[in-house]
Amino acid sequence: MKTKLFYLSLLLIFCVGSIVLGQTFPENTIKADNCLPGKFYPRIYDDGRVIFQLLAPEANEVLADIVGTKFPMLKDENGLWSVTTDPIVEGFHYYAFIIDGARVSDPSTYTYFGASAVMSGIDIPAPDMKFYSDQNVPHGEVRARYYYSDIRKAIRRCFVYTPPNYDQNVNKKYPVLYLQHGWGEDETGWSTQGKMNFILDNLLSEGKIEPFIVVMDNGDISGLPFNVVNWDSAQSVTSTGKNKVEFQDLIIREIIPMIETNYRTIPDREHRAMAGLSWGGLQTFEIVFNNMDKFAYLGAFSGALRLRENVDITELYGGLLKHPEEINEKMKLIWMGTGTEEGNWSQSFRDKLTEMGVKNIIFYESENTAHEWLTWRRCLKEFAPMLFK
Amino acid sequence: MKTKLFYLSLLLIFCVGSIVLGQTFPENTIKADNCLPGKFYPRIYDDGRVIFQLLAPEANEVLADIVGTKFPMLKDENGLWSVTTDPIVEGFHYYAFIIDGARVSDPSTYTYFGASAVMSGIDIPAPDMKFYSDQNVPHGEVRARYYYSDIRKAIRRCFVYTPPNYDQNVNKKYPVLYLQHGWGEDETGWSTQGKMNFILDNLLSEGKIEPFIVVMDNGDISGLPFNVVNWDSAQSVTSTGKNKVEFQDLIIREIIPMIETNYRTIPDREHRAMAGLSWGGLQTFEIVFNNMDKFAYLGAFSGALRLRENVDITELYGGLLKHPEEINEKMKLIWMGTGTEEGNWSQSFRDKLTEMGVKNIIFYESENTAHEWLTWRRCLKEFAPMLFK
Repeated sequence: MKTKLFYLSLLLIFCVGSIVLGQTFPENTIKADNCLPGKFYPRIYDDGRVIFQLLAPEANEVLADIVGTKFPMLKDENGLWSVTTDPIVEGFHYYAFIIDGARVSDPSTYTYFGASAVMSGIDIPAPDMKFYSDQNVPHGEVRARYYYSDIRKAIRRCFVYTPPNYDQNVNKKYPVLYLQHGWGEDETGWSTQGKMNFILDNLLSEGKIEPFIVVMDNGDISGLPFNVVNWDSAQSVTSTGKNKVEFQDLIIREIIPMIETNYRTIPDREHRAMAGLSWGGLQTFEIVFNNMDKFAYLGAFSGALRLRENVDITELYGGLLKHPEEINEKMKLIWMGTGTEEGNWSQSFRDKLTEMGVKNIIFYESENTAHEWLTWRRCLKEFAPMLFK
Repeated sequence: MKTKLFYLSLLLIFCVGSIVLGQTFPENTIKADNCLPGKFYPRIYDDGRVIFQLLAPEANEVLADIVGTKFPMLKDENGLWSVTTDPIVEGFHYYAFIIDGARVSDPSTYTYFGASAVMSGIDIPAPDMKFYSDQNVPHGEVRARYYYSDIRKAIRRCFVYTPPNYDQNVNKKYPVLYLQHGWGEDETGWSTQGKMNFILDNLLSEGKIEPFIVVMDNGDISGLPFNVVNWDSAQSVTSTGKNKVEFQDLIIREIIPMIETNYRTIPDREHRAMAGLSWGGLQTFEIVFNNMDKFAYLGAFSGALRLRENVDITELYGGLLKHPEEINEKMKLIWMGTGTEEGNWSQSFRDKLTEMGVKNIIFYESENTAHEWLTWRRCLKEFAPMLFK
């Protein structure tokens, strides 16, 4: 009897599934690229409007909350709520459903760690999406590496991208890029939302970059580090708070040595870069400018570089900007990028640095993108070819 | 003004957070090990009861659905719903919240791919949990490898576990275990829910196993493969349906060659094993028994091995069981495991094989566990030391 029920229930699933398969979809729509197997929503119109759906038969109110706008959804007679949004700008956007006040992720799609939560995300295709798509080219690996941190007294995980044929070229040594995520994200960000491995695989296959290793660790800016924030300090929690000491120490004292022990690296400053997005960009300026003996390349992607009014920039980085010639002499690349739709914090920080005497800052603007992952994917694509030259 | 609002909103977050930090929790509870940063629920009593919480101010009904039981939750004056369940047996269990009819995952925890969906899961600590915990021992890597499948005409991803110091021992070659997930799961299962890397790291550090590589690919049994199921066939979709041809072909014609090209393997049957859980166990019997020239070791963890009444077992595996001596001669290990709380399908399949003349089947029972990941973690722990001896 139990066996029969088992098969009957499976048959039922398949029948329901077949009806789904037979359904038609609005013209000029494609399903989101992160739909779960057997799911067909959300769907994206070619003008960027998105159709969200959610089954919630007894709910009174359901909202789709995306890019700061809450779109009320409407229920049909089967309890299926749906809404078509206004056109949404190309790129990757976190979203959530709010069901009678409960903020939850979309049960139809894969999720991401962002905004200190497990979030839904939708990737509105960009005209240049090929550069971050998985193509039939040689692929590097993204390796989860677990290690014990004596500073944290815990097992930590980082992800390490090794380029194609790393294992075959056993005598080759590689430069290393330390690549950081943003506030509320974690070490998974760059290889999921960021698609960093596909970006580098594609650039490599086009001969636009030399192969290098990428290390993506956790910048310890997920969740709320309540006791480590000093908002009276300069521009960042990392500049005088406990967090600075710890994360800077972590990367300098533990992560770099761990990587150089376990991978075939070229262990000098001219083959070591650091970059980060948003808060990770702020961490990058702090850590690189405080450790120019360790890094010769710096990238800040939409770096969270807002100076507070009362901050004297010459007090930052151990007073480094009082001696800009030291930066000009040592740094082989200072690269900054930003989206055109996200304010001008990066520009004004660039201007401030220039005013202080820092030369040759490369500045990139991603057209039509905001403070989100398409900006940062493009930044990586533009930044990578300038490394280790 | 915008800047001030930015800092004020952050301050607000920190204040709210501090209140959370100051809150007290029920005695004899610990928070679940997969709570997001800054989250303190679900909590687990030492007798296995679980407290779930969800903020849903306007909802009429919220249920916590776990292990087949729906626990109604109660709302307090702040719109916070909560419930304390009955004691839940040790092990890993998927669960969901049902908010006014909408089935969603818990926004307080990391999620998992299972049951063909993004699911919440809770790990009730087992007395023997140390064997699958992350400890300060040498760690192997879990590598995401992307490759083009000519059969699927798509880029696929598999995960490859390489033991500690794989990169340092450049002249050493390793045996390989091909390890499959269950129906509705994917290639992420074994390294997240399964904790396979910690299990092997721990066994290695205790000297209980020799190092080997583990390959975890997608068995193509996520979602609903509508057109590939032939329920009139023998015991499984894999036995005569299109799925068999494809997945068996995939592993034999593409995955094994790809692995042996890219990793330092010992490429013979005596250094190649396959194992799988639930439906992956069924796939394992099918693939190994149809390809004994490729594999000498077989493991089935709660294998989905229910024989239908009208099936003649001697017709399976190309009629192999008409010649059990061939199995007895070639296979170095046939290992089966099951939980004591999940029925006796594995036992009856073992009995059937024995009746047909198959000898020396090793059979393991995990005490007090059902058809879930604690059973399969224990299976891996018991199975691994018997491999490649």
